Amino acid sequence: MWGGRFAEGPSAIMREINASIPFDKALWRQDIAASKAHVAMLAACDIVTDEDAETIIGGLEKVAAEYEADGVPEDWDLEDIHMTTESRLAELIGPVAGRLHTARSRNDQVATDFRLWVREAMEEAIAGLEALQRALVTRAGEHADSIMPGFTHLQTAQPVTLGHHLMAYYEMAARDVSRFSDARERLNQCPLGSAALAGTGFPIDREMTAQALGFAGPTTNSLDAVSDRDFALDYLTAASQCALHLSRLAEEFVIWASQPFGFVRMPDTLSTGSSIMPQKKNPDAAELVRGHAGRIVGCQTALMVTMKGLPLAYSKDMQDDKPPVFEAASLLRLSIAAMVGMVADATFRTDRMRQAAELGYATATDLADWLVREADIPFREAHHITGAAVKLAESQGKALDELTMDELTNIDSRIDERVYKALSVEASVAARKSHGGTAPDEVRKRVAQAREALGMNS
Amino acid sequence: MWGGRFAEGPSAIMREINASIPFDKALWRQDIAASKAHVAMLAACDIVTDEDAETIIGGLEKVAAEYEADGVPEDWDLEDIHMTTESRLAELIGPVAGRLHTARSRNDQVATDFRLWVREAMEEAIAGLEALQRALVTRAGEHADSIMPGFTHLQTAQPVTLGHHLMAYYEMAARDVSRFSDARERLNQCPLGSAALAGTGFPIDREMTAQALGFAGPTTNSLDAVSDRDFALDYLTAASQCALHLSRLAEEFVIWASQPFGFVRMPDTLSTGSSIMPQKKNPDAAELVRGHAGRIVGCQTALMVTMKGLPLAYSKDMQDDKPPVFEAASLLRLSIAAMVGMVADATFRTDRMRQAAELGYATATDLADWLVREADIPFREAHHITGAAVKLAESQGKALDELTMDELTNIDSRIDERVYKALSVEASVAARKSHGGTAPDEVRKRVAQAREALGMNS
Amino acid sequence: MWGGRFAEGPSAIMREINASIPFDKALWRQDIAASKAHVAMLAACDIVTDEDAETIIGGLEKVAAEYEADGVPEDWDLEDIHMTTESRLAELIGPVAGRLHTARSRNDQVATDFRLWVREAMEEAIAGLEALQRALVTRAGEHADSIMPGFTHLQTAQPVTLGHHLMAYYEMAARDVSRFSDARERLNQCPLGSAALAGTGFPIDREMTAQALGFAGPTTNSLDAVSDRDFALDYLTAASQCALHLSRLAEEFVIWASQPFGFVRMPDTLSTGSSIMPQKKNPDAAELVRGHAGRIVGCQTALMVTMKGLPLAYSKDMQDDKPPVFEAASLLRLSIAAMVGMVADATFRTDRMRQAAELGYATATDLADWLVREADIPFREAHHITGAAVKLAESQGKALDELTMDELTNIDSRIDERVYKALSVEASVAARKSHGGTAPDEVRKRVAQAREALGMNS
Amino acid sequence: MWGGRFAEGPSAIMREINASIPFDKALWRQDIAASKAHVAMLAACDIVTDEDAETIIGGLEKVAAEYEADGVPEDWDLEDIHMTTESRLAELIGPVAGRLHTARSRNDQVATDFRLWVREAMEEAIAGLEALQRALVTRAGEHADSIMPGFTHLQTAQPVTLGHHLMAYYEMAARDVSRFSDARERLNQCPLGSAALAGTGFPIDREMTAQALGFAGPTTNSLDAVSDRDFALDYLTAASQCALHLSRLAEEFVIWASQPFGFVRMPDTLSTGSSIMPQKKNPDAAELVRGHAGRIVGCQTALMVTMKGLPLAYSKDMQDDKPPVFEAASLLRLSIAAMVGMVADATFRTDRMRQAAELGYATATDLADWLVREADIPFREAHHITGAAVKLAESQGKALDELTMDELTNIDSRIDERVYKALSVEASVAARKSHGGTAPDEVRKRVAQAREALGMNS
Repeated sequence: MWGGRFAEGPSAIMREINASIPFDKALWRQDIAASKAHVAMLAACDIVTDEDAETIIGGLEKVAAEYEADGVPEDWDLEDIHMTTESRLAELIGPVAGRLHTARSRNDQVATDFRLWVREAMEEAIAGLEALQRALVTRAGEHADSIMPGFTHLQTAQPVTLGHHLMAYYEMAARDVSRFSDARERLNQCPLGSAALAGTGFPIDREMTAQALGFAGPTTNSLDAVSDRDFALDYLTAASQCALHLSRLAEEFVIWASQPFGFVRMPDTLSTGSSIMPQKKNPDAAELVRGHAGRIVGCQTALMVTMKGLPLAYSKDMQDDKPPVFEAASLLRLSIAAMVGMVADATFRTDRMRQAAELGYATATDLADWLVREADIPFREAHHITGAAVKLAESQGKALDELTMDELTNIDSRIDERVYKALSVEASVAARKSHGGTAPDEVRKRVAQAREALGMNS
Repeated sequence: MWGGRFAEGPSAIMREINASIPFDKALWRQDIAASKAHVAMLAACDIVTDEDAETIIGGLEKVAAEYEADGVPEDWDLEDIHMTTESRLAELIGPVAGRLHTARSRNDQVATDFRLWVREAMEEAIAGLEALQRALVTRAGEHADSIMPGFTHLQTAQPVTLGHHLMAYYEMAARDVSRFSDARERLNQCPLGSAALAGTGFPIDREMTAQALGFAGPTTNSLDAVSDRDFALDYLTAASQCALHLSRLAEEFVIWASQPFGFVRMPDTLSTGSSIMPQKKNPDAAELVRGHAGRIVGCQTALMVTMKGLPLAYSKDMQDDKPPVFEAASLLRLSIAAMVGMVADATFRTDRMRQAAELGYATATDLADWLVREADIPFREAHHITGAAVKLAESQGKALDELTMDELTNIDSRIDERVYKALSVEASVAARKSHGGTAPDEVRKRVAQAREALGMNS
Repeated sequence: MWGGRFAEGPSAIMREINASIPFDKALWRQDIAASKAHVAMLAACDIVTDEDAETIIGGLEKVAAEYEADGVPEDWDLEDIHMTTESRLAELIGPVAGRLHTARSRNDQVATDFRLWVREAMEEAIAGLEALQRALVTRAGEHADSIMPGFTHLQTAQPVTLGHHLMAYYEMAARDVSRFSDARERLNQCPLGSAALAGTGFPIDREMTAQALGFAGPTTNSLDAVSDRDFALDYLTAASQCALHLSRLAEEFVIWASQPFGFVRMPDTLSTGSSIMPQKKNPDAAELVRGHAGRIVGCQTALMVTMKGLPLAYSKDMQDDKPPVFEAASLLRLSIAAMVGMVADATFRTDRMRQAAELGYATATDLADWLVREADIPFREAHHITGAAVKLAESQGKALDELTMDELTNIDSRIDERVYKALSVEASVAARKSHGGTAPDEVRKRVAQAREALGMNS
Repeated sequence: MWGGRFAEGPSAIMREINASIPFDKALWRQDIAASKAHVAMLAACDIVTDEDAETIIGGLEKVAAEYEADGVPEDWDLEDIHMTTESRLAELIGPVAGRLHTARSRNDQVATDFRLWVREAMEEAIAGLEALQRALVTRAGEHADSIMPGFTHLQTAQPVTLGHHLMAYYEMAARDVSRFSDARERLNQCPLGSAALAGTGFPIDREMTAQALGFAGPTTNSLDAVSDRDFALDYLTAASQCALHLSRLAEEFVIWASQPFGFVRMPDTLSTGSSIMPQKKNPDAAELVRGHAGRIVGCQTALMVTMKGLPLAYSKDMQDDKPPVFEAASLLRLSIAAMVGMVADATFRTDRMRQAAELGYATATDLADWLVREADIPFREAHHITGAAVKLAESQGKALDELTMDELTNIDSRIDERVYKALSVEASVAARKSHGGTAPDEVRKRVAQAREALGMNS
């Protein structure tokens, strides 16, 4: 009836759709660790004998050594990493292997393994983000004085420093770290011992396994513990937001690397040529980081849709939790690493940046502010006067500070010679020394704090 | 700076993030086919000699034979399937291999290969959906008279037939087929010859390659041809909607298989047991189909986000088009196949369905309709009278047709003996013979049309 | 228990969460039209008397006139547009109003009304897209010869013409039109007469209502007809893809309007100034079009998630179908209109575009192609030679055609004087006359076809 | 060119697409508060005179009083709430109003206003979730002993208590609260004083405004401060996850309220009838909560897509941040409130639950566990023995504890009389007293802790 590949009928389809071993074998280290912790606890609680426990632990270590050496065998009939390991264990140590599954179920086992894996992914993300922060503060420190046009709407708005611009991404990364940290803390409860859904009648010690596996404690409701995938969604959400931040910096690198901007030369190692256009040097790494943001957001959507409307407790739909998380983690790891490389090794063409900052009447706000400050004109009125000055300069093809004193006083008689001091791009950035402003001293101060926080000064 | 795995620095990261060969090797058949068509055209247009063309085609066939036998080698330094093939070709036939890339670029090459792949995926989806339709009409034909409760809000509403219910999914599948067909037609333009982005100066014949590859004709704007991924989004969209339909049927199977419903016994081949609860028979296949809907929707989101805001023409972000499509296609293929198996082999417990249909006052509407028809009472008033009858029956723990004539005339004197004929579930479904209604004859009529359309009567 | 606003308890919450009248009043015209068609059919089928039908139709027209004049009253207790209208009708014409609801239910009624509304939204989108196409071909015709840099990876790749670039968006819009057209055809079946879920026992004529409302015919399965929201998803999908296309053009306008590019001056009417920077002219309309793409994709996601896993037939979740569609339609209408304005009224700075096209060694491919064509060198080798030429030119700060004959023959002796003809940007674009290529004559040909298709030549 | 509604041309389109006042008027309280804090600081720093500050503050209070009384006027030409307020202020107090905008820009102003709004939305969500927790623990306390079937795969798995089941949702709500709390803390930095993007040259005191508005301190990078919408995404993410939890409970209520389950009678106040089926009582509120999850997830997707790939600093796309947040907040508020009502007022049909728990061999695991515990059989073997017992019982239409001693010992001789004690549903739940298990005492313990945490015991 279904023909072709599935001519063998439903059993063949089931073998394929049901098998999670092709992807959940990634959990093998976690599965071994959790089984060892579980059996050690069973022994401590006199649920299995010490001898049996030792045999099982020895067997698990043998299995682990095999996996380490040869990879995890992918036998679809064994469905998943848990059955694969237990089946191999039984081959190695005989029926005593059957005691391992006392007082647990695949439902709490997979929840535990997966939490352990996701916890590591969170830690990896944090480490990667800290590497990115180090790269950012290093380059920001080098460029605390380098003037570039600050854009809003991608229009030249006001001069800023490159160091200030890079530090904006430091702040985003800091929020990303905080998001992964919060998620890690929320995750860090151990489901092991929740069994299938209702807990167990065996006199187990859930604190003991929780501690052995580095959790803060056991989860508090067995139905919730086997049905909950918040920790995976928390990871995917933090990853998505992080990827969106990276996509913004990637977008800037792509635009900056274009010929008309020419603000940056991307590292050769992170660029490619063209199969047909010999002159090309393409910012591929930046584009891939930007593209990956789409896929990571897609992973998050996937799990949200999968979890929607599922009744308690475990449903098999939840087996679809792992592929999106594994994929997102792999894409995020690469995206962060590539961005570290780009930030660390990009050549910023500060001459072209400075040139661009001089165009576009970027210091018009400084004129308006001068009028407020020195001539006590309400800001809204000062804004109108400045508009007239910009219009005049534009019509004459001049920069603002190329207008003559006469031209300026014609526009408003309250303007005097002192104004010219406010109209250079250096004066403009130096003036903006409000907390968090672009003034080089402010940037240096923030860079120093960040270096301190990252332990870069020791 | 980034430590660990990426200690080798940016080059190692770039090798990994840039390489698409791990996934785009799936395109090898398409790549070989398109290259053969291209070089045959170059020879026909005297851009390469016939001899060179023959050498190249022979070489491509050797490469294909190697791939068929041993798989595609995965060398990240060769980046993608195109370079992998071209490099192997050069090893086999020497510098003449370099003539193959005349008048094309990787940009039009990948767009062509990927369209060919997606076209097949669309055809596969259509074939799968037709298998599903055949399974549905077969079972619907068997159950044109089987009465079950029709639900709205998952509340018993009116009796329907199981055949009618199954045919609702036939209609959804028909729309899915139509969506994939429309998408296939829209896709079926050949980008080959658009080169990098601007077309080519070589006197090529794009009609010839288009025809050779089964396209309706060449695309009409080279910039668009290399920047367009609508065909992939069309596929993902049709796949998502199809998956949502499947998720609805899957949800019904899960609910129907529960003990309180007991409407269906899922096929053993598509169910599993439990690692801890020996009595369990879980509808895993149905749950996985429902869960996969999430991942397929996630794939669609992924590509949408990736494409958002990309300037023309090709950007490397677009390399992220393939993984979501490949993943969705694999999930959809399995989901449809599993659903064919479930529909074909499920045991419908029609006794329990009929029993349930008798509960819940499912024929209350029939009483209201009878009052309108026979006693010429406006519907809204009839609705109120019926409400009173239901309330009385409910308070006495009776079914509607167990109310006595006295009880009924007490409620409204216009009711007479004939009403009882309208109140059985058989009478109820038989009455609903409006076009597309649940009456067994209507269902049989529609089943017959569907069998005809699917060529099942020959 | 819930305090604050909901101190009145569940009834107050229910009034608010259950009421759809705040948004579904947008359906009033469709609701009136469908009710009129329904009652006319009831009369034709002798289910209501002609007199009653006339009274009801007259009443409905009065209600419509009131809505037209004063808007639809928003009484949450009447829940939705259907009850609001029926209740007002009863006030106006008395109990006979109750006959209108014979042989229908809110489930088929809302499905019909909503289809009618979505059908109009599809038609509106098509009309808007055709306006956009007209604007694009008009400007493309003006700029069939205007040379600009063609980008891949936002790097200067090869010269193209602005007309060719604009026509790429014409092609995207054509696919959008085709998508809305396909969706419209798939939608165009009338659910009216499916009643609650099972059809009706009244001897209705579904063809008659279908025809009266402009449908191709009635739907064929009553359960499907009241549970199906594919037509809404089809709309949202087509809208999302269209919005993504618009986001790409919007991105280009934003980049082109930046000072470093300076390729375009956006129309004053579609730009804004700044509250603080008097010199700014921001491409707000373009940015809003780009931002709206996010919201439209969000609307599509919303309905997909809502529909996932819903059992048949109607569930109240489906009331959440309308807000995303209404929102997307409003955003899309504005986005298209704004884009028409931008395309029609933007000032393209062709001098700056041409200047930029001369930079970046955009004609390097032409040199490689020349070597293939004139010196019979395999493309891959020609690509290497050209790479050397670009490197030399770059090191000397020259354009490619500023290299001397000596310098060129030093690189490869097979190069001769004729090469210079190939290296100008004019020669480059003129050469690319393959079907769909950027050569001005090709562009003009395509523009002429497009004008014909749009009826712009009459 | 675009005809119809936009016959007036681009200006009319721009007025409509650009105006945010239709939605951002929701920010009026925040806008007034932030302006008052700003001007008080300007006076404290001698940037405006005390007199001017007093005039401005008085004027702002008058504007606020007008808004409170008559609503915010919606004049599209004034674009947004900021210009609307400033313009009215100028009418009321004259040119001195122009001094208010000193040392700030719309970019930091809107970032501040929106943070204040979102902070309240987070607090409202937390308050709502605590109300839900209170309802859950109250009902859980009542039903700590009520036995129901625990499901996995919606198959009867093991008996659990209703109290335990409800407490699973308490845990989910606790994670939701923690997510909103984390988000609130991350949000709580004040952008005011970041000005357009670069900070300001006026000697402002950002600590002072931050404190006045209840922030922990000022943001530390002006570019980031005006470009960041993480706080809105954090809100939408927490809202999405919360909505997904609610969708699960809603799904359960819908299934439980179905006739075959009959586990619950939903409160009349949160149900509706049918326009055509007089007997219906539909769980509309539950369905709407489930449906709303789709829309809330859609809102999150919307903002993610909008933010993807935006270069620094502010771009107008970011104006599209507010509608999704406003919509999600409104849907979430209603969803939580409706769920509080459902949980508090639902009638749990514990008789039917208990009956269902007795079916489906729910205590099979208890037999297996008994074999492990009492007969020292490895779990895997015990699982097989139990499977045989279930099969026998099933074939005889008996419950497990209706098998005779002979029948049991025939299966395995190690079974003895004591086993019957383990096979009742009461024994089963009582046994599962591991931490977080379903044993009534465990549930009562957790309920007591929860009541303590929620301050319900005082």
